[in-house]
Amino acid sequence: MDDGNDRITRKLQQLAAAAESTFWGYLGCEFVSMEGNIITIALDAKPHHLNPIGMVHGGVTSSLLDTAMGIIAMIARPEEKVVTTNLSVHFVSPLYEGRLFVTAELVHQSRKMITAQARVVDSEGNLGTMGTGSFRVI
Amino acid sequence: MDDGNDRITRKLQQLAAAAESTFWGYLGCEFVSMEGNIITIALDAKPHHLNPIGMVHGGVTSSLLDTAMGIIAMIARPEEKVVTTNLSVHFVSPLYEGRLFVTAELVHQSRKMITAQARVVDSEGNLGTMGTGSFRVI
Amino acid sequence: MDDGNDRITRKLQQLAAAAESTFWGYLGCEFVSMEGNIITIALDAKPHHLNPIGMVHGGVTSSLLDTAMGIIAMIARPEEKVVTTNLSVHFVSPLYEGRLFVTAELVHQSRKMITAQARVVDSEGNLGTMGTGSFRVI
Amino acid sequence: MDDGNDRITRKLQQLAAAAESTFWGYLGCEFVSMEGNIITIALDAKPHHLNPIGMVHGGVTSSLLDTAMGIIAMIARPEEKVVTTNLSVHFVSPLYEGRLFVTAELVHQSRKMITAQARVVDSEGNLGTMGTGSFRVI
Repeated sequence: MDDGNDRITRKLQQLAAAAESTFWGYLGCEFVSMEGNIITIALDAKPHHLNPIGMVHGGVTSSLLDTAMGIIAMIARPEEKVVTTNLSVHFVSPLYEGRLFVTAELVHQSRKMITAQARVVDSEGNLGTMGTGSFRVI
Repeated sequence: MDDGNDRITRKLQQLAAAAESTFWGYLGCEFVSMEGNIITIALDAKPHHLNPIGMVHGGVTSSLLDTAMGIIAMIARPEEKVVTTNLSVHFVSPLYEGRLFVTAELVHQSRKMITAQARVVDSEGNLGTMGTGSFRVI
Repeated sequence: MDDGNDRITRKLQQLAAAAESTFWGYLGCEFVSMEGNIITIALDAKPHHLNPIGMVHGGVTSSLLDTAMGIIAMIARPEEKVVTTNLSVHFVSPLYEGRLFVTAELVHQSRKMITAQARVVDSEGNLGTMGTGSFRVI
Repeated sequence: MDDGNDRITRKLQQLAAAAESTFWGYLGCEFVSMEGNIITIALDAKPHHLNPIGMVHGGVTSSLLDTAMGIIAMIARPEEKVVTTNLSVHFVSPLYEGRLFVTAELVHQSRKMITAQARVVDSEGNLGTMGTGSFRVI
């Protein structure tokens, strides 16, 4: 990354604002920070994010992982378009209503592929879901 | 399954109605049918299901896969509680606004683990996303 | 596939013979058949294929899945080079010494990506391992 | 872990010796070290570890990941039996003949599930394959 962190942060704030009408906004994602190559996104898990047995729906945490890793891939290739090709998710512990945080970071990039990893934790830092993703530069 | 298909279908319709206030309803899932051990769910993909580049968000199709396979796991073990432990998703082709269908079926079950597979297609039957899931009986 | 099944079968027999000095031969893979777009490979699981608790090592069945799906990808693109980018494996039931069969088939192909699925069963047809793979055309 | 590192290291050396006649030894795995909860295993990749296009076979690196993570799971539950249930592998860059190192570490453990992650690098530290695994305590 040639840009300074501030410039990336401003760019991400703009992207988040522009994404309010997409699934990003509908799900309730909030951009928190981009520090030292680690992005953090937050979501207030409410009743409509839960499954019928009262835990945060696996689709919600999968969406958070995909979203956060997708931004990492996008930052890695600001001039190109990237799409997720693979997402692998481990649900290690149930998450409940309340504030969730997802952090993502780059694992590897080659000319055509980007690999990232991410984790969703609750407000006390307990790991709920972790995953890895592959992105293709198109 | 000892029960007739009709009984399962009625049970699923009741479950879908009860899940309207959960992520199932918020995402916009509709129960379509349960035939020959294959469940079908539909979703009308609208602008709020898309990512910023106009394709259905990977989190949406991942949610559909997890949801449909979760129901398969639940049907396999009607008297027990099942939770997703692993979800693996292949995004093979972009999906756009319009009606999506996800079908899921059982691959294997043992005393404590259930494995399922599922596919998301568009209204013309084009495969967009496929995945597999592991569920733990708790 | 423009070629007839016989021509593909002969080609696969040649490839298998040429691969005897590679990991294919070291592991003990045998080409069985290519019928109706489904490839079948066999392996006689012996003590050196087991883990310390007497079950076929997960690396062995993962290798069988990767190998069989890789051939499916290669057949889909006979004039190009394909490499595995992602492999997702579900170990659903233990496998033991004896003859194993792995079948693989194409799930989807686009210009640059191929997706396949495969299963490893024992001689009685019990499913032991199933998986999916992504391959990149380079 | 209540035990000191030395005790674990001696235990792992004994296990490695006992595993010489299993797939561990047949593949050519060598126990290198257990330091700060990270295990390192090495393998000299030779012609019989390659695929027909001269790269280390994906089954070999998958086997290394599964093996190293399996030991991490075993160390986490020394009194219980653990089996791999899921393995997810990202092949990010080709690996060739020469010395490979795989490192693995614990991501999370609950009463019945253990999650780990691992990486395979070449002798210059270049990442070739990374993966995550789920293990069930039985």
